[in-house]
Amino acid sequence: MNGKTVKVDKLPTIRRLPTYLQLLRTLARNGNEHVSSGYLAAVMGIEPILVRKDLELTGISGTPRVGYPISALLKAIEDFLGWDDVLHALLVGVGKLGTALLGYGEFLNHGLKIITAFDNDPAKIGTTVQGIRIFSVAKMPDLQKRLNISLAVLATPPEHAQNVTDILVHGGIKAIWNFTPVDLNVPPDVITQKEDMLSGLAVLSVKMARSGTLLLGGCSNEN
Amino acid sequence: MNGKTVKVDKLPTIRRLPTYLQLLRTLARNGNEHVSSGYLAAVMGIEPILVRKDLELTGISGTPRVGYPISALLKAIEDFLGWDDVLHALLVGVGKLGTALLGYGEFLNHGLKIITAFDNDPAKIGTTVQGIRIFSVAKMPDLQKRLNISLAVLATPPEHAQNVTDILVHGGIKAIWNFTPVDLNVPPDVITQKEDMLSGLAVLSVKMARSGTLLLGGCSNEN
Repeated sequence: MNGKTVKVDKLPTIRRLPTYLQLLRTLARNGNEHVSSGYLAAVMGIEPILVRKDLELTGISGTPRVGYPISALLKAIEDFLGWDDVLHALLVGVGKLGTALLGYGEFLNHGLKIITAFDNDPAKIGTTVQGIRIFSVAKMPDLQKRLNISLAVLATPPEHAQNVTDILVHGGIKAIWNFTPVDLNVPPDVITQKEDMLSGLAVLSVKMARSGTLLLGGCSNEN
Repeated sequence: MNGKTVKVDKLPTIRRLPTYLQLLRTLARNGNEHVSSGYLAAVMGIEPILVRKDLELTGISGTPRVGYPISALLKAIEDFLGWDDVLHALLVGVGKLGTALLGYGEFLNHGLKIITAFDNDPAKIGTTVQGIRIFSVAKMPDLQKRLNISLAVLATPPEHAQNVTDILVHGGIKAIWNFTPVDLNVPPDVITQKEDMLSGLAVLSVKMARSGTLLLGGCSNEN
């Protein structure tokens, strides 16, 4: 993973920005115009001082006893993340995870639109999944250039991850959102971000097993 | 979040266990019987010594120049996580994220099966989403008890998260996998695990914006 010029000490703040966005959009939808750092802190389970420090990044100031102006804060966060524009992406690997990601329309509220998808399974090529046409991986380099796409969402089986990455990079991809367990080898000018949806489930499972919760429910011999 | 008896220093290892599982299953599917810590370390981008330390948790030993026996290691990790059985869960909030989670069949390979789902939208109640029948939230306490479910996947809008949690806890839920941005108030015997699918996208977006990648692709004025 390449840090580029993003300061590492800002990363926890950046990771919290989508949460602020989600809460601010909810408040705006319900007719609110201002929000206090204390309210956001209570909902998120963090300290108010941390909220104020996070929001400093946006350049928007709060007013004592009034709070932060919600619409200005929303715009500033979207602007900071580049989510005021929609970035077109491609997806590779239309398995269970890839299909779920294609269907997760919420990405559109977060600056990302998957416009095309690729797989190497002849049974999938040419079909439409979640409204997206699936193409052969062989067509990827050509389409990648024609559509001028710089971001790829990688959801292949692990054994194909590096090979597909090499094709993507050769075709001009500049950033890969990596949902595989593989640490990808990429040139220094390509950004990768690894995602792991199941590690939280592992922590939850172990906590449940240790607390004896498993004994209260579930069922055996089904796997 | 409640730590229970899980040692905090084991949490990074536990978070990596699903990655080991995924890689080991791939190796097994391709006919391999043994794997070295060096191979796993290279694919995951971590040090071999860390792999060996992680795998100590399973009680399975590797043999020099032969490696770890894959099927024994698979069984030991599944057993450690409690994923050799399938735990039945319910889901609340069948919006975009909830629908994607219902469709993500991979959970079944990771010890979790969502067997019923709830929403408060009359247009959704009674319909079937991804093969799962959607019930009214009002029916939740009754079904929860009848089906003896102890785990809930929470994917409601933030403003309903605490209210739904109170109903779940009152109905006997012992663990909540929380996909909302809200820090939930629960009694000490209820386990919660917060998940945030979009924080990685935020980090990726900022890295791309800082590296100028956004200028190479994407499109404006579409949001």
